[in-house]
Amino acid sequence: MDLRKYIRDIPDFPQKGILFRDLTPLMGDKDAFNYTVKEIADHFRTFHVDKVAAIEARGFIFGAPIAKELGAGFVPIRKPGKLPYEVVRKEFQLEYGMSILELHKDAFKKGERVLMIDDLLATGGTALAASELVESLGAEIVGWGFVVILKNLKGEEKIGKYHIFSLVNFD
Amino acid sequence: MDLRKYIRDIPDFPQKGILFRDLTPLMGDKDAFNYTVKEIADHFRTFHVDKVAAIEARGFIFGAPIAKELGAGFVPIRKPGKLPYEVVRKEFQLEYGMSILELHKDAFKKGERVLMIDDLLATGGTALAASELVESLGAEIVGWGFVVILKNLKGEEKIGKYHIFSLVNFD
Repeated sequence: MDLRKYIRDIPDFPQKGILFRDLTPLMGDKDAFNYTVKEIADHFRTFHVDKVAAIEARGFIFGAPIAKELGAGFVPIRKPGKLPYEVVRKEFQLEYGMSILELHKDAFKKGERVLMIDDLLATGGTALAASELVESLGAEIVGWGFVVILKNLKGEEKIGKYHIFSLVNFD
Repeated sequence: MDLRKYIRDIPDFPQKGILFRDLTPLMGDKDAFNYTVKEIADHFRTFHVDKVAAIEARGFIFGAPIAKELGAGFVPIRKPGKLPYEVVRKEFQLEYGMSILELHKDAFKKGERVLMIDDLLATGGTALAASELVESLGAEIVGWGFVVILKNLKGEEKIGKYHIFSLVNFD
């Protein structure tokens, strides 16, 4: 299935000079959405995934149904102040300033096998920070799944130690 | 399945005097999460749902897998400035000040049948605003599904014209 026709280009969003890849047409189309979730879940089906972790907020839209497909639990990685219980937090550099991610301290048991999901991989700064948070709790990352990778931003180098799978690559 | 034991009470979050019902233990438990998604999806299976719409961000965690279960598309209803394309927006009153929701103008075709999902129904202000946004695009709401309803806040009265289903009710 050619998913590219369900991805809409929005110039200058959220900032001037950025070409935003809008996945809402893909989510809204029942065939494209169901195919996307199933393909990523199928790729990781033999990886013995205990939990799927995904990054707020677009990551939830793919991560949660992939967890359901795999019969796994779901763990949200969130922006600061959103998670109500005790958290570990990671501050990291993005292209435009600093950002912070938080994860509940009791989100994983030691040794649990975690599939990481986000909608899109750009520079990889967010993915790396999320990976470090998950590993800080003693869980094991079995791989990263994305719908889209923006190849020219070289995010794959930043999380190169992990198995990476995606359905659509843009140069 | 008794879902209550997977719901954690957090006093004074996000503000003093609020008892927050934390669903992250429910999401993280594979049996509880899969049961929750399946039970809500099963309830609406005969409702001929074209698309599931859910409210940022916790609503995505249940709405997206319910969409997958029903073979439907998924539509995010978001906080201002997050959706990149043309939007309709609704300002509404919450207990503590005003809030705004946005929805892509092309999210629905006229007459599409929409299941609305959020994690929790409190006063119903957010649910009512989301309903009005969806109907403003000519779509038809077939019902609202929640994991939790806080009965004493009477949110069901505010969206009383819709079919409402939930798995856990707190007084």
